[in-house]
Amino acid sequence: MASADGTKLWGGRFVGDTDPIMEKFNASIAYDKRMWDADIRGSKAYAKALKKAKLVTAEEQDKILHGMDQIHDEWAKGVFEVKPGDEDIHTANERRLKELIGEAAGKLHTGRSRNDQVVTDMRLWLRDAISILKGNALQLITTMVERAAVEIDVLFPGYTHMQRAQPIRWSHWILSHAVALSRDVERLQEISRRVNVLPLGSGAIAGTPFNIDREMLRQELAFEDISINSMDATGQRDFIAEFLFWASLCLTHLSKMAEDLMLYSTKEFSFLTLSDAYSTGSSLMPQKKNADSLELIRSKAGRVFGRCAGFLMTLKGLPSTYNKDLQEDKEAMFDCYDTVHAVLQVTTGVMSTLKINPSVMEAALSPDMLATDLAYYLVRKGVPFRDAHGISGKAVFLAESKSIPLNQLTVEDLRTASPLFSSDVSAVWDYSSSVEQYSAPGGTAKSSVAAQVEHMRTWLKKQVQ
Amino acid sequence: MASADGTKLWGGRFVGDTDPIMEKFNASIAYDKRMWDADIRGSKAYAKALKKAKLVTAEEQDKILHGMDQIHDEWAKGVFEVKPGDEDIHTANERRLKELIGEAAGKLHTGRSRNDQVVTDMRLWLRDAISILKGNALQLITTMVERAAVEIDVLFPGYTHMQRAQPIRWSHWILSHAVALSRDVERLQEISRRVNVLPLGSGAIAGTPFNIDREMLRQELAFEDISINSMDATGQRDFIAEFLFWASLCLTHLSKMAEDLMLYSTKEFSFLTLSDAYSTGSSLMPQKKNADSLELIRSKAGRVFGRCAGFLMTLKGLPSTYNKDLQEDKEAMFDCYDTVHAVLQVTTGVMSTLKINPSVMEAALSPDMLATDLAYYLVRKGVPFRDAHGISGKAVFLAESKSIPLNQLTVEDLRTASPLFSSDVSAVWDYSSSVEQYSAPGGTAKSSVAAQVEHMRTWLKKQVQ
Amino acid sequence: MASADGTKLWGGRFVGDTDPIMEKFNASIAYDKRMWDADIRGSKAYAKALKKAKLVTAEEQDKILHGMDQIHDEWAKGVFEVKPGDEDIHTANERRLKELIGEAAGKLHTGRSRNDQVVTDMRLWLRDAISILKGNALQLITTMVERAAVEIDVLFPGYTHMQRAQPIRWSHWILSHAVALSRDVERLQEISRRVNVLPLGSGAIAGTPFNIDREMLRQELAFEDISINSMDATGQRDFIAEFLFWASLCLTHLSKMAEDLMLYSTKEFSFLTLSDAYSTGSSLMPQKKNADSLELIRSKAGRVFGRCAGFLMTLKGLPSTYNKDLQEDKEAMFDCYDTVHAVLQVTTGVMSTLKINPSVMEAALSPDMLATDLAYYLVRKGVPFRDAHGISGKAVFLAESKSIPLNQLTVEDLRTASPLFSSDVSAVWDYSSSVEQYSAPGGTAKSSVAAQVEHMRTWLKKQVQ
Amino acid sequence: MASADGTKLWGGRFVGDTDPIMEKFNASIAYDKRMWDADIRGSKAYAKALKKAKLVTAEEQDKILHGMDQIHDEWAKGVFEVKPGDEDIHTANERRLKELIGEAAGKLHTGRSRNDQVVTDMRLWLRDAISILKGNALQLITTMVERAAVEIDVLFPGYTHMQRAQPIRWSHWILSHAVALSRDVERLQEISRRVNVLPLGSGAIAGTPFNIDREMLRQELAFEDISINSMDATGQRDFIAEFLFWASLCLTHLSKMAEDLMLYSTKEFSFLTLSDAYSTGSSLMPQKKNADSLELIRSKAGRVFGRCAGFLMTLKGLPSTYNKDLQEDKEAMFDCYDTVHAVLQVTTGVMSTLKINPSVMEAALSPDMLATDLAYYLVRKGVPFRDAHGISGKAVFLAESKSIPLNQLTVEDLRTASPLFSSDVSAVWDYSSSVEQYSAPGGTAKSSVAAQVEHMRTWLKKQVQ
Repeated sequence: MASADGTKLWGGRFVGDTDPIMEKFNASIAYDKRMWDADIRGSKAYAKALKKAKLVTAEEQDKILHGMDQIHDEWAKGVFEVKPGDEDIHTANERRLKELIGEAAGKLHTGRSRNDQVVTDMRLWLRDAISILKGNALQLITTMVERAAVEIDVLFPGYTHMQRAQPIRWSHWILSHAVALSRDVERLQEISRRVNVLPLGSGAIAGTPFNIDREMLRQELAFEDISINSMDATGQRDFIAEFLFWASLCLTHLSKMAEDLMLYSTKEFSFLTLSDAYSTGSSLMPQKKNADSLELIRSKAGRVFGRCAGFLMTLKGLPSTYNKDLQEDKEAMFDCYDTVHAVLQVTTGVMSTLKINPSVMEAALSPDMLATDLAYYLVRKGVPFRDAHGISGKAVFLAESKSIPLNQLTVEDLRTASPLFSSDVSAVWDYSSSVEQYSAPGGTAKSSVAAQVEHMRTWLKKQVQ
Repeated sequence: MASADGTKLWGGRFVGDTDPIMEKFNASIAYDKRMWDADIRGSKAYAKALKKAKLVTAEEQDKILHGMDQIHDEWAKGVFEVKPGDEDIHTANERRLKELIGEAAGKLHTGRSRNDQVVTDMRLWLRDAISILKGNALQLITTMVERAAVEIDVLFPGYTHMQRAQPIRWSHWILSHAVALSRDVERLQEISRRVNVLPLGSGAIAGTPFNIDREMLRQELAFEDISINSMDATGQRDFIAEFLFWASLCLTHLSKMAEDLMLYSTKEFSFLTLSDAYSTGSSLMPQKKNADSLELIRSKAGRVFGRCAGFLMTLKGLPSTYNKDLQEDKEAMFDCYDTVHAVLQVTTGVMSTLKINPSVMEAALSPDMLATDLAYYLVRKGVPFRDAHGISGKAVFLAESKSIPLNQLTVEDLRTASPLFSSDVSAVWDYSSSVEQYSAPGGTAKSSVAAQVEHMRTWLKKQVQ
Repeated sequence: MASADGTKLWGGRFVGDTDPIMEKFNASIAYDKRMWDADIRGSKAYAKALKKAKLVTAEEQDKILHGMDQIHDEWAKGVFEVKPGDEDIHTANERRLKELIGEAAGKLHTGRSRNDQVVTDMRLWLRDAISILKGNALQLITTMVERAAVEIDVLFPGYTHMQRAQPIRWSHWILSHAVALSRDVERLQEISRRVNVLPLGSGAIAGTPFNIDREMLRQELAFEDISINSMDATGQRDFIAEFLFWASLCLTHLSKMAEDLMLYSTKEFSFLTLSDAYSTGSSLMPQKKNADSLELIRSKAGRVFGRCAGFLMTLKGLPSTYNKDLQEDKEAMFDCYDTVHAVLQVTTGVMSTLKINPSVMEAALSPDMLATDLAYYLVRKGVPFRDAHGISGKAVFLAESKSIPLNQLTVEDLRTASPLFSSDVSAVWDYSSSVEQYSAPGGTAKSSVAAQVEHMRTWLKKQVQ
Repeated sequence: MASADGTKLWGGRFVGDTDPIMEKFNASIAYDKRMWDADIRGSKAYAKALKKAKLVTAEEQDKILHGMDQIHDEWAKGVFEVKPGDEDIHTANERRLKELIGEAAGKLHTGRSRNDQVVTDMRLWLRDAISILKGNALQLITTMVERAAVEIDVLFPGYTHMQRAQPIRWSHWILSHAVALSRDVERLQEISRRVNVLPLGSGAIAGTPFNIDREMLRQELAFEDISINSMDATGQRDFIAEFLFWASLCLTHLSKMAEDLMLYSTKEFSFLTLSDAYSTGSSLMPQKKNADSLELIRSKAGRVFGRCAGFLMTLKGLPSTYNKDLQEDKEAMFDCYDTVHAVLQVTTGVMSTLKINPSVMEAALSPDMLATDLAYYLVRKGVPFRDAHGISGKAVFLAESKSIPLNQLTVEDLRTASPLFSSDVSAVWDYSSSVEQYSAPGGTAKSSVAAQVEHMRTWLKKQVQ
C-alpha cells in the first residue's frame, strides 16, 4: 500500500511489500487525527523558524502558512479526506500540503523528525485539554462549595467503617470531597507546567542542525520552557504517565464520593434522591430507579487506571529514545481526557440536582453516636480519657442489654459504670450542641464549616485569576 | 431525549429529563452494536422458548423469528439505522423489531432482563472470538514448529542475563517460544469451557418464571452448560476477567519473543533480518530500517494488561449482582480481542518471513561459552563439579589476563589451574559436539530438539481435531 | 563479603569487591529460605539421579542424603544458621552440606544450575501451597452451602444497582457467592496441573548432559509431567503469573461478598450481625463495632492484584531465559499465598458465626418490589410484557404520588392504568408466592435453591476424592 | 487474646473472643513499629497541646514527655518489648507509657483518635523518607553530570528503535537520563509539600473538641500547613498514592537506563564493562559475568508499580473517611521507600564505577549513520528535504546492493541518485563534524552538551540550598 502519490515518506529504500494487517497495526491516523489542529499549529511555527534560518524563502513560508490554513479549514469543516497512505496525522497534513502548494511542502520537514513533531503536537493538545479539565473541576468544586454554604445547618450521621460514628454537618461531608478535588486541581497545575515545554527542535535524537531558533519556536507556540536534552525530549512520555495517573487519582476520589452517594440513596438510608436526569430504570422491574450515573462514575476510576497501568507497563524496560511502543501514548491520553471530561460534568450535574431529605438524615442520628460525648463528659470531670472510654463502653453495653437507647439509661444506671455521672448528663444528648464542640479548624462546628467554605471560595477565586 | 417512538423502554415512570452528557455517558450502543449477531441469535432462541412456554403463539414466534432475520440482514448489509433512543444493541434490535412486526415484539422480553440478555450476548460473541484466536495461535505455532524443523542445524549463542551462556540450536530457541504459546492455547481452551455456559433464563436477579425451558435454550444456542445460580449468572464477569488476563499473559510471551528478535536484529548482533513487510523507515534518517512490528508487538502486552488491570479494579468491592459498573466489560473485551488477533497474525508474518544469517550466528559462538564444558571435562575425570567450576573459572581469568581466547590456552597454561588437564582437552573446543551433550528431554542436542518438534506436531494435530 | 569458607560459589574469577548495598539487594535468602524443605527434597532426588548416572558413588549418594536429612532437621528445629555468604537457600543448603559431609557435597550441583534448581523448588513449594488453599476454599464453600441449606426459608430483598429489586431467598444469595468460589477451585486445579511439571534437568539453558534420568527425577518428586524445552523451563514463570491472577480473582470475589455483608451489617440495613470475634472497636468512640474483618477481606483484593500487576510488568519485555528480574517471583508468590490463606480462613470464620436477623430482613421487603409481579399478572392476562411493564410503572408512579405503598392502590386506582386489573390482583402481594415463581434452574424458588444446594454438595464430594 | 494488662484499649464492650487468625490478620505492629519514632514525636507534641488546653497538668505533661523519652530509648536500643495485645505501634507505645507512668498515660488520647494519629505518624515518617530519597537522587544525578563533563569527547552511536540512528556524544546519553531524574526530584518536592500537612486534631471524623491548638501542634511538628477538613484528613491517602506513583515513574526511568546499559554491556555491543562489584557469576557457567545489578534495577519498576496498582485498587470505591482497608498503606509505603532507596544507591554505584570502551564505541559508528547528513548536504544545495531524503535513501540502497559502506560510493555512484553531488561530499563522512551540527539547545554538539552540564550543575546547586 502506498500514499496517494505513490511513495511512502521514507521513500526510496524499501523493496518488499507490506502486510495489510501490519499496515493497519502500524497506522495511528484513526485516532491521532484528533490532533490535526495542534499539528498545523506546530508546522506553521516551524515554517517561520525555517524562514528565519533561511531554509525557506519568505514566499515559500507564506505558501506553507497559507496551505496550512486551508488544511485547517478542511479539518474544521469535516471535509479533510484521509487517504490510504496517510499513516498518521503528520503524514496526512504534509501529503495534503504538497497537493495544495507543491514542492515547497517538501521543505517543511527540514531538520525536523516525526519524533519531535509528534511529541510537540501531543503537548499542544494536552495543554488545551488540561485547561478544559481544570475548568470542569472548578465548576464541580464551586457547585459543591456553594451547596455546602446553603445546607450548612443539616446534620446527619458521620460514618467510619460504614458504621455510624458521630453527628456531623452534611456540608462537612460535601466539603471533605471538595477539598480532595482541590488537591487534584493543584496537581493538574503542576503537570501542566511540565507539559508546557517545547520539544520541537530535537530532531530524531541528536538535535537540530541549521540554526533553527528554538526560542522563537517556544514563543510562537507559547511554551514556557525549552526541553533540555534532545534524546530525553523525544523519548520521554512522563507528562503522559503523569496525566494518566492524575486522572486515576481524581476519579478514585470521585469513586469514593459516588460510593457514599449510592449508600445514601439506598432505600435503607434514604438520605437523598438523585434527579431523574441522572437515574435510569430497569427493562424488567418497573419500580426501579437506579443511580446509574453514580455507578458509571465509580467504574471509571478502574478504566482510567487501567490506561495508566497499561502505559507504565509499556514503558517499563524500554531502551531510551523513540521506540514505536510509545505509540500507545495517544489512545490512553484521549480516553482518559474524554472520560474525566464526562465524569466531571456528570458529577456536577448530579451534585447540583440531587435532593436531600433532611428529616430522614436527622432522624438517623441515634444516642449511641454520642457515646464519645458521654466519655468527654467524664473527661471534663477529670477522668482520664482511657477510663472514660471504658466507662462509656459499659454504658453502651448496659443500654444494649436493656434494649433501650443509650440516652434512656437513668442516672442510676449510669452510676453503675461510674459514680461521677449526675443529672447534668442529660445535656449530653443534644446533637446540635455535640457538633458545636468541634470548633477547631477542620471540625464540624458551624463556625468551622463556614470557615472551610470561605477557605474554598478564596481558593477558587485564585484559580481563575 | 427519547427513543424513536417517543418512549424509553422503562417507560411510564420518569418525569425528569436526562442530561445529554449523561445520556451519552450511559449509552453503550457505540461499541456494543458489535454484538448484533449474538443478540439476534439469543432473541431467536428466546422466542422459541416463549413459544414452548405458551407465552407467544406459533404465529407470533414466526413473526419474531422472521423480523429478527430481517434485522440480521440490515446489520449484515450495513444499513441498520441506529436511532437516538437506542442506548444499547438490545434496545436497538427490539425497537426495530417493533417497527417491523408490531405488538408481538413487546412479548419478546417476557421473563427476560437485560441483565441476562447482555451476558448471554457476550458469551456468544466471545465464544466465537476465542475460536478465532485459537486458530491464529495455532497458525503461529505451526509456523514456528515447521521453521524449527527446517533450521535445526543452525547453532548460535544461547543467552542468559543477556550474556552469552552456552551454544544452542536456533530451533531450540524457536521452540522455547512455541511451547509457551502452546500453554496459552491450553489456557484458552479452559476459559472457553467457562465461557460456554448459558445464563439466559436468570432474569434480573431472581430467575425466570413462566416455565421457560432453559435446557432448550442451552441446546438452541449450543452452550455446554447452564448457569447454576441466577444472581451469580447475571452479576459475574469472571469469564471476561479471565480472558483479559489470558490476553495479557499471551502477549507478555510475545513481548519476550519480540525483545529477543529485536536484539538479534540489531546491527551489533545481526543474527537476522526482518522482512521489509514488517519494517518501516524513518521520516528523517534515510538509512533506518526499524523493526516497528516487533516494537508494536512488545508494546501491546502493556495495552491489554491495562485493560485487565482496569477491569479488575472496576470489579473490586462492587456489591453483588448487576451494577452499571459492569458496562466496562465490553470495550475491554473487544479491544483485547482485536489486539491479540492482530498481534498473532503479525507475529506469524514476522516469523514466516524473517531471514536468519547462520554464518553470523555461528561466528558469534566463542570459546568462553565452553567454560562449562571445560569444567565437565574435569568432572569426567572425577573432580567434584564445584571444584571443576572453580578451576575452569581460573582458566577463564587466565585467558582474559593474556587477552587470548580460552581455547588458545596451552595445556601447560591449563595445568596451572589443575594437573588433570591433558592434551585430550582439545576435544572440548567443538561447538557441535558441545550441543550434542544435551540429549536429555528438553535439551539442545539434535535428537532432543527433533523430539520437541515431533511433540509439538502431535500436539498441534490434537488441537485441530 | 564472602561465604563462611571464604569463597563465593562462582569462585575464582572475581577480583573486585561487592558493594554491601548491592550484596543485600542481590540476596534472596531473607525470603527464599522459606523453601528450605523443597530445596532439600529436590537435592535428594537429584543425588539419586547422579548416582544412577554414575556421577556419584552409592556411598557419596548416601552421604548427601544423610547430610540433607540433617539439614532438614536443623531447619525444622529452627537451628539452621544462615551465614553471611548464603545469598539464597540453595547456596545455604549446599554450603551447610559441605560443612557436614565434605567434598562429596561439591558433586551435587553437577549438571544442575540454579536456574533449574530454583524453579523446581518453587514448583514443589507452590504445589503444596495450592493444596492447602484448595482445602481452605472447600471449607469455606462447605460452610456456606450448609448454612444455605439451613436458612433456606429466610426471604429478604435482592438488590441490583444497590437498590431493592425482587424478593429472594437469603440462601440464594449465599449460594451465588459459593458458586463463584467453586469456579475459583476449578481454576486452581487447572493451575495446579501446570505447576506440577518437572523442570529439573534443564540446566542453565541448554539442558543437562551426563545422562541424568529426568523420568526418574519426575517420579522421585511426584511430578505429573516433564518440561518440554529447557530454555522455556528455566525462563518461564507462567505458573506464578497464573497463581497471582488466580489469587486476584478469588479475592475480588470475596471483596464482593464482603461489600454485601458490610452493607447488610450497617445500622440502616441491620440484616445481620458479625460475631464479636470478627469485629473491632474504636479507640475513640465507645459504641463502635466495626466490621474490620470484612474491610480487610475487601482490601486484600487490591494487595494481591498489585502483586500480579507488578510481576506482569516485571516480565514485560524481558528477553528469554533466566534474567535476574525473575527474582521478583518469590515474594509475590509467598505474599499472595499468605494473604489468600488468611482471607479464606477469616471468611470462613465470619460466615460460620454471623447472625442474621430474619425479621428485619423480611420487614425490608416492600410492595414496590413486586412491581414486576404486577406486570406478570397482566402478562398472564395476555398483555405483551413491554406494555405490562409500562402499566405497572404507571401504578408505581400513582402510588408514589399518593404516598402509599403499591399494594394499597385500590382496584379502581389500578384500572386507571389498565382495565384488566380485577380483584384477583390481591394475590400478587405475597412475597412467599412471588419467590416460588422462579423455579427454573438457578432461580430463587425453594425447589431451585434446594437443587443448588444439592448440586454444590455433589460437587464438594467430588473435590475431596 | 488480650493486652498485657488484660484489657483491649476499646475495653468494656466486647463479650466474644477473637479468632487468633483474625487477630493476626488485623494487627499491623509487625510493620508499623517502624514508625515508633514518629509516633513518639506526635504524642509528645500532643501532650503539650493537652497541657495548653488544660486537659493535663504541667506535671502530667512532664511525666508523659519523660515516659515517651524512655520509650524512645528502648526502641533506639532495640529493647522495646512488643507484647501480645499490641496490635499496632500506637497501642504499643501507649501501653508501655502506662506501665511507665501510670494513670496519666490514660489522658494522652483525649480528643485524639487513631484515625488522626496514624496519618500524622505516616506523614512524619514519609517526610523524612522523602528527604533521604531526594539526597540519594541528587547524589546519582551529580555522579552522572560530572561523568558527562569528563567524558564529553567520546562519540558513539545514538539508537532509536534499537537501531543505529546518528552519532552522538556519550555524555549526551548520560545527560538524557540525568534530566529525567531531575524531573523526578521536582515531582518529589511537590509531593513533599502535600505530605507536609498536619492532620492531628481531626479526631475520628468530626474534629477535635477541647480547644486543642492545632496551630501549636503544627509548629511543634514543623508541618507547613494544617489540614482543611477533618473527614478528608483522616480518610485520604493521596500522599501515599502519589508517593507510590512517584516511585513507579522514577524506577521506570531507571529501568530504561538499565536496559540501555545492559545492551551496551553485551558482548555484541561491548561499549562498557560493569565493575565486578555490580556483577555476579553463574553457579554453572564459569565464564559468566552477569549484570545482575542492572537486571534488579530494571525489575524493581514492576515491583513498586505493583504496590501503586494494588493500593489504588484498594482505594477504588471505598466509602469516605477511615475504613480498615486503608491499612494497606503502610507496607506499600515502606516497601517502595526501601526499594527506591536501594535502587538509587546501587545505580549510583554502577554509574560511578562502570568503565567505557571508547575505541569500541567509536568503531561502532558507521557511514550509513550519516545518511541524514548526506540528505542535509543536498538541502544545503537547495533540495527540499523530502526529496533529499529520498535521494539519500537511494544512495543507501545502492551501497547495500554493492555491499560497500555508504561512504565508499563514488561521486559517480551518487550522481545516479542526484546530479547535485560533487566531490565536496567527502566532507560529510566525518563523525566529529556531524555531531557539531547539532548546536541548538538540547543537541549533541560539544557546546550544547557542555551547556547541559552547566544547566544541571546550576540546578543541582539550587536543590541543596
